Amino acid sequence: MSGAVLLGVDWGSSSLRAFRIAADASIVEARRTADGVFAGSGPFDARLRALLGDWLDDGLPILLCGMIGSDRGWVHAPYVPAPAGADDLAAALVRAPFDHSAWIVPGVCLAEGETRDVMRGEETLLFGLSAPSDRATVCLPGTHSKWADIAAGRITGFRTYMTGEVRAALLERGALAVGVAQQPSAAAFAQGAAAAVQGVTRALFQARARRLLGTLAPEHSAAFVDGVLIGDEVARESTGPLILAARGAIAESYAAVLTRCGRAVTVIDPEPLAARGLLRLARQAGIAA
Amino acid sequence: MSGAVLLGVDWGSSSLRAFRIAADASIVEARRTADGVFAGSGPFDARLRALLGDWLDDGLPILLCGMIGSDRGWVHAPYVPAPAGADDLAAALVRAPFDHSAWIVPGVCLAEGETRDVMRGEETLLFGLSAPSDRATVCLPGTHSKWADIAAGRITGFRTYMTGEVRAALLERGALAVGVAQQPSAAAFAQGAAAAVQGVTRALFQARARRLLGTLAPEHSAAFVDGVLIGDEVARESTGPLILAARGAIAESYAAVLTRCGRAVTVIDPEPLAARGLLRLARQAGIAA
Repeated sequence: MSGAVLLGVDWGSSSLRAFRIAADASIVEARRTADGVFAGSGPFDARLRALLGDWLDDGLPILLCGMIGSDRGWVHAPYVPAPAGADDLAAALVRAPFDHSAWIVPGVCLAEGETRDVMRGEETLLFGLSAPSDRATVCLPGTHSKWADIAAGRITGFRTYMTGEVRAALLERGALAVGVAQQPSAAAFAQGAAAAVQGVTRALFQARARRLLGTLAPEHSAAFVDGVLIGDEVARESTGPLILAARGAIAESYAAVLTRCGRAVTVIDPEPLAARGLLRLARQAGIAA
Repeated sequence: MSGAVLLGVDWGSSSLRAFRIAADASIVEARRTADGVFAGSGPFDARLRALLGDWLDDGLPILLCGMIGSDRGWVHAPYVPAPAGADDLAAALVRAPFDHSAWIVPGVCLAEGETRDVMRGEETLLFGLSAPSDRATVCLPGTHSKWADIAAGRITGFRTYMTGEVRAALLERGALAVGVAQQPSAAAFAQGAAAAVQGVTRALFQARARRLLGTLAPEHSAAFVDGVLIGDEVARESTGPLILAARGAIAESYAAVLTRCGRAVTVIDPEPLAARGLLRLARQAGIAA
């Protein structure tokens, strides 16, 4: 079990991922379960021990990020205010009560006028970007999509859209639940994105009205809803070069809208970002070699 | 049990209301249950008989409106396309298989370019307005808020916003569910309405971020969410005199935003509208005196 310098853990609301991370930030080995912070039960130390198991034998330091540091997690790691750099986060790691060296990355919060925003987990992915020192805007789609501005290696601002949560809440039941398996449809997605200019709550209802009146197939309801929500999200953001950290269908959906808006997009794989960010922060904090 | 000329029934998704309606459209007696079309179970004729009971002894005609006429209701009463007047709806009543004279009011549908919209139940309330012959815009807030344009006594256009459904779906669970009893707050409502300019899915997340960062009390979460959704809904609509058919807290919420936008609003009680509209349509169809 040589070659690793850090055990990295991305412990979110609904999933738990652990990595043995090499000195070059590559992932030597990965484990993943559905034992999310709010999904599983039992003491966090026992749950972590169960996942890491024999990985603990090497005595490597452990760095965790995600909702595990929330006020409903293992140990509360209070938000660091933006603008925040890797040095700010590294200085604010919170030690977890574990029989190995284990630390938790804090989240980042934002206050601009009346506006407030928070992230927890995404900051680590952002610091896993290869060249976060230049000015860039990064989109991390998901349950709570984040659009983060990076300048001189710091998170200077960010905006959260509840895209994924609204999608799931509305398709699960109620007027937009259709009870048939959903299929991708670029056409229905484009129709939803076009309808978004009428406003989100109005455009969403058209997923129902168009279905009832026969211009939207029931199995394309989710694609239409995605078009509405992602279309509105992208339209809210200013133009300019964008890094889209996503893969698969969700990457295609965002890229479709962004391209139609004429926005230059670089799509990158989000999978390696957590391990890279965790190693970077661990080194900055002096807990990993 | 004299004095009534019609038994009117407003049978929606989640509730069932019946009225003995007098010749002047006043309600002689009313009954209400939670036996909505999709809430209760059993054959519709038995459910209607259980509610009407002794009212049936007078042999009065029965007119029903609402989701009872949907394709998942008792008998399907297909949508009448807008623009639609009382004459169009009266000509399209569908007879229900009941041992009394019972008819169902169809809904109204709209097609404008790619946009589609539907209403079922609200058309009857709209025809219950005292002077629907002049040009007016009417807002009927609810699970699916309707904004209808009336001209020369016809429903010429309308727009549906999923305000109530989105509110309920998001407050019930997930990031915005706070697990404490909610209290009204004009201040939190106004903050939500102001945040709505950032877009619905972004402003909604601020109900969470502001709570986590201490600028929004947990018990004011619903008021903030109402502000976001109602604020966005109202902002989407053009200015001009408006009839707001609502009562209680929801009327106050809409009126607050409308007044801030400088929009002239006449608030009317929606309660008598169903009975008035049902009597008007029954007379137009020749099934009531």
